[in-house]
Amino acid sequence: MSKLSMYPITLDGKSVDEKRQEIIAYFNNTFDLFEKVFELLRDESVFYKKSEPTRHPMIFYFGHTATFFINKLINMKIISERINPEFESIFAVGVDEMDWDDMEESRYRWPKVTDVRSYRDKVRTVVNGLIESLEFSLPIRDDSPMWIILMGIEHERIHIETSLVLHRQMPIEFIQKVEDFILCPHAGEVVKNEMLQIKGGFIELGKNKEHHLYGWDNEYGSYSEEIDDFQAAKYLVSNGEFLEFVEAGGYENESYWDEEGLEFLRRSGVKHPHFWVASKDGYKYRALAEIIEMPLNWPVDVNALEAEAFCRYKSQKEGVEYKLPSEAEYAAIYKASGLYDIPELHESRANINFYHYASSCPVDEFGFNGIYDVIGNVWQWSRTPIRGFAGFEVHEAYDDFSTPTFDEKHALILGASWASSGNLIMKHSRYAFRKHFFQNAGFRYVVSENEAKEEDIYESDALVSQYCEFQYGDERFGVENFAVKCADIAAGFADKKIKALDLGCATGRASFELAKYFDAVEGIDFSVRFIGVGSKLKNDGYVAYNVPLEGDITREKKITLQELGYETLKDKVSFWQGDACNLKPNFTGYDLVMATNLIDRLYNPKLFLEDIAKRINRGGILVLTSPYTWQESSTANELWLGGYYDDDGRPIRTIDALRELLQKDFDFVHSEDVEFVIAETARKHQHTVSELSVWKRR
Amino acid sequence: MSKLSMYPITLDGKSVDEKRQEIIAYFNNTFDLFEKVFELLRDESVFYKKSEPTRHPMIFYFGHTATFFINKLINMKIISERINPEFESIFAVGVDEMDWDDMEESRYRWPKVTDVRSYRDKVRTVVNGLIESLEFSLPIRDDSPMWIILMGIEHERIHIETSLVLHRQMPIEFIQKVEDFILCPHAGEVVKNEMLQIKGGFIELGKNKEHHLYGWDNEYGSYSEEIDDFQAAKYLVSNGEFLEFVEAGGYENESYWDEEGLEFLRRSGVKHPHFWVASKDGYKYRALAEIIEMPLNWPVDVNALEAEAFCRYKSQKEGVEYKLPSEAEYAAIYKASGLYDIPELHESRANINFYHYASSCPVDEFGFNGIYDVIGNVWQWSRTPIRGFAGFEVHEAYDDFSTPTFDEKHALILGASWASSGNLIMKHSRYAFRKHFFQNAGFRYVVSENEAKEEDIYESDALVSQYCEFQYGDERFGVENFAVKCADIAAGFADKKIKALDLGCATGRASFELAKYFDAVEGIDFSVRFIGVGSKLKNDGYVAYNVPLEGDITREKKITLQELGYETLKDKVSFWQGDACNLKPNFTGYDLVMATNLIDRLYNPKLFLEDIAKRINRGGILVLTSPYTWQESSTANELWLGGYYDDDGRPIRTIDALRELLQKDFDFVHSEDVEFVIAETARKHQHTVSELSVWKRR
Repeated sequence: MSKLSMYPITLDGKSVDEKRQEIIAYFNNTFDLFEKVFELLRDESVFYKKSEPTRHPMIFYFGHTATFFINKLINMKIISERINPEFESIFAVGVDEMDWDDMEESRYRWPKVTDVRSYRDKVRTVVNGLIESLEFSLPIRDDSPMWIILMGIEHERIHIETSLVLHRQMPIEFIQKVEDFILCPHAGEVVKNEMLQIKGGFIELGKNKEHHLYGWDNEYGSYSEEIDDFQAAKYLVSNGEFLEFVEAGGYENESYWDEEGLEFLRRSGVKHPHFWVASKDGYKYRALAEIIEMPLNWPVDVNALEAEAFCRYKSQKEGVEYKLPSEAEYAAIYKASGLYDIPELHESRANINFYHYASSCPVDEFGFNGIYDVIGNVWQWSRTPIRGFAGFEVHEAYDDFSTPTFDEKHALILGASWASSGNLIMKHSRYAFRKHFFQNAGFRYVVSENEAKEEDIYESDALVSQYCEFQYGDERFGVENFAVKCADIAAGFADKKIKALDLGCATGRASFELAKYFDAVEGIDFSVRFIGVGSKLKNDGYVAYNVPLEGDITREKKITLQELGYETLKDKVSFWQGDACNLKPNFTGYDLVMATNLIDRLYNPKLFLEDIAKRINRGGILVLTSPYTWQESSTANELWLGGYYDDDGRPIRTIDALRELLQKDFDFVHSEDVEFVIAETARKHQHTVSELSVWKRR
Repeated sequence: MSKLSMYPITLDGKSVDEKRQEIIAYFNNTFDLFEKVFELLRDESVFYKKSEPTRHPMIFYFGHTATFFINKLINMKIISERINPEFESIFAVGVDEMDWDDMEESRYRWPKVTDVRSYRDKVRTVVNGLIESLEFSLPIRDDSPMWIILMGIEHERIHIETSLVLHRQMPIEFIQKVEDFILCPHAGEVVKNEMLQIKGGFIELGKNKEHHLYGWDNEYGSYSEEIDDFQAAKYLVSNGEFLEFVEAGGYENESYWDEEGLEFLRRSGVKHPHFWVASKDGYKYRALAEIIEMPLNWPVDVNALEAEAFCRYKSQKEGVEYKLPSEAEYAAIYKASGLYDIPELHESRANINFYHYASSCPVDEFGFNGIYDVIGNVWQWSRTPIRGFAGFEVHEAYDDFSTPTFDEKHALILGASWASSGNLIMKHSRYAFRKHFFQNAGFRYVVSENEAKEEDIYESDALVSQYCEFQYGDERFGVENFAVKCADIAAGFADKKIKALDLGCATGRASFELAKYFDAVEGIDFSVRFIGVGSKLKNDGYVAYNVPLEGDITREKKITLQELGYETLKDKVSFWQGDACNLKPNFTGYDLVMATNLIDRLYNPKLFLEDIAKRINRGGILVLTSPYTWQESSTANELWLGGYYDDDGRPIRTIDALRELLQKDFDFVHSEDVEFVIAETARKHQHTVSELSVWKRR
């Protein structure tokens, strides 16, 4: 490897062939660097350890970034063959600690490291082949197949950074030094911080789809805010500056912590920053692969709750309100610093991209127009929760990259760290984490009068809102609620009622309804955007959304667990993200599997139907509903179950194809038509007649 | 002009900037060449003459190719300002002799030549500016704005060829010589024709969307046919060879002509080919700008009916069946000739692209592997009617380029002529004309056992079929037929019932229904694909279409004028192509204007509403229906009438905006909700509630 980390490629250029070579170099550099991060694990046994109880063991992440390529390429129909269906299901999801992440790893046996390593090699070969051969044009836009390759690369770059945090959280005896990861050799006494005046003004954020660097969905669109002048700290808060707070009993004084902070203190029991190691000689400092003397002039690593507590402490002490910067204030600091975005910004000018170190460095080492570490060293927590900009749209290949974080609970981190590369070091990138998460993150405080713009927390995803109304909203044209009706019919056919699966559960209504009959109901959907609704309803007791009326005009609506009568049922229901064509092995043992309006939206419905029998108990029931609206955009033509003419010109109907496919394991029991209506506006609706069919497992 | 006609550009390349320069050169060459064709008209008065009674005067074509650019750019929302709305309506449509072409030019005064010329200059400036500035990438695909520019260029290339035919049809005294148009100096005695053996086999036609040359909609998709070996004439039929048929009384012997041919003879009264000039010394030959001695070894120019008659004559005489080649047989000839497609084929190798002459030349001048004029000299009529290939899709910017010709009445012409350039000389291009039309076309005969593949004449355009079923088909969910109901309601409000306009008439049902009440009904739609249905129903008495059931499975359906009870009404109804936002001046004087589900699909609904009052008689009625489903893809956000929040955050409803806009000229009379259902498959429907509002012209 000639260079530890390459700079990201641009999307434009003159020659497709040269761009292919750039992408090949960038991809392999990413894959190499990711694997180098795992050289830090002392031996193979460490791959099966977790650095936090709420996270997966390391082996998950080792497989995850490779399966990501294959899963996205399959889902976007760029390739049609899986490399290893089992790996591609168990390594598929579970990064942020969401309710639907499957953390019960005991439910399946993790594979051997050597097998995962050889799987990674196969993925590398496939991806290199695609980069050589995919047709694409310049500039690369988000509808290009090459965008999916870049998405895989940038996804792995994120995991390079987050895996380094996890490894640093591991007990030191599990970690070994890796020569290329250099610890910064400079450390010294605390640097006295001071406040600088920053010019406010009209701040515009966001970028457009023509931008020449890769972006995640949340970066596109537009946002503007008028802010007043404010003051910002010259340096990031150093270990030395934070020590004052710790020594003043900051972790014990509840007045410095808000409710979420107190909950964090209760759960974790911490008394000092996570990477400080208490010893009889005072605090030492946990670097990536070693424990060193406390570098008082390096930035402190804290989560957002600790950063906020420090601000409250300092405000109380000085009688001036200190707070974390807003996203717009950070943009003003960036502007004041005279920084150029990459690739114009040379990597030597900041502690980024592993160029200097694989660790923090003194807070006064990298200055920009008199203000330090505007980018690089450690990320800086912001007081702004991440939200979509005006014009926000999910990318169809990764519709849950951002939307699950638009819950006002995920705070933006700004400015990148020593471990950041790729999209992470771009001016427009926007990452956010729950406030108790650890990253390579610290903070800079500001003194400002700027108020946070208040946003409502109504569901702003039009398709999700449409489904909320479909599943929980008003009846139209006298047609009964579809989810309720299907659940009632299905339950009527089930003899045993221990465990049911609602596959393609969307916003979860039928899952709750099935819980009226079953002891346990699992709702699975491919889209986390949809699962989020059922999950929020279960956990927060309500969901609010906007019903479109006419054009852009909407009406706000709120549904509650109480009104729905689900309060006593909610604990029976759990929601999971999953791919019906490649379900994880643990989803099994059901008395009922209900799949409403699913089969004609799967990329390979036959895979689902061939696999489902083994997950249903003998005597159990499979209920399918579908209007058989086959479409090329969901299912490649040659994989339709029915709705086509065979070679002799005979029409093949889906219901007949289902009988043929299911007869091996099931008896046909019943079928009937069930209508449903989905409102697109107050006046326009989809009005559909699904065929519901009931099959009994022999 | 350095070169009379440039070769077309390719869609791929390495540099966007170089491609811009290529397109600028190609565009200006096209514009120049088109204007040079009009230098043939001796003086300005000739611009107002017609070369055929069924065609427009020349001034129409002179304006038409320029307005085409602006109309397409407006409709595709690439530009928003018209240059001259009047020109852009009166020069908009009317090229083939379709029922909906507006040939009553007396209904509006044609503009002055100098005004059209200065209009053309303005268009040239706008288009050059766009080519310099539009963002696009390489290869250029059919969703690129630059594709619309290329569409305008290739459209003008077609008119270069067809205008030359029209000019040649003009009386010789109206035409003057133009130096650059060179008459071929070689002419001689008749060349004896002979038959060559051509290898059959598996013939594949069509190209895919990645092809490197511009294509019209009908060229894409796939088609294959297995054909047997056959024989083809070595040369095109020359004037000398055809003379034998004429002298044998071919034009008098009815057994050589089919029904359509006899109708042509009756109407035209011709006794010899159109460009032959009978004189006391025998036949002379009308070239572009002069009458010359008969060049016996040049190809004869005939229409398809004359070519078929010749084949019947020759068959009877020799006892062997001669016929015109099928499209697949021509492809086999092309293959046998070893031809390369352009740009590899040098233009000097064939009589194309004005490279050698602006006339025909001897049939034995340009040979390819022993067979002559496989491309170039004159087009060659085929026995195959034009049809869409499997996978045929209209281009949204020009949805009526091909579909109106898919009526089994338009025969393909193959191989290009001396006046062909641009797309016309490409291997995959496919042009078709009614059989009585004259082009620069002759024929080559074949002896073959290959049967024509029979195709049904069911409407294969999915959206058009959907509307046929919506307007003429079965009721669903108990909802009454929408077109019938709206016509009934509207007629009930009209006091006088002389003339009604059904604007946005789609497949025409409401137009027929209004004819139950009104003396005359004009149905106007933007899309000729839709008008074609009403027009066919009126003229042929029936329309057949396919109702989608499940996936690709459809059911055939036929509706007849008789069953509908419209036989006595049909003559009151006429259908026209038109743009509701820029209607031609002659559409006026109505007692009722009904616009069902139109306003939220217009690119600028306000233009329509501001203009419509002056077309309605005092006391007349305007009926609007709409579900107000505003969408960016139809109407730019800032042009929505309602369905948005104003600057103060107040919701603006469309009905209120209509009251505001219409109050100047209309009194509000009535409103009610009217439901409609459009079936997408047997199970999936759009179920919508339109608001119908009635306004009385003061």
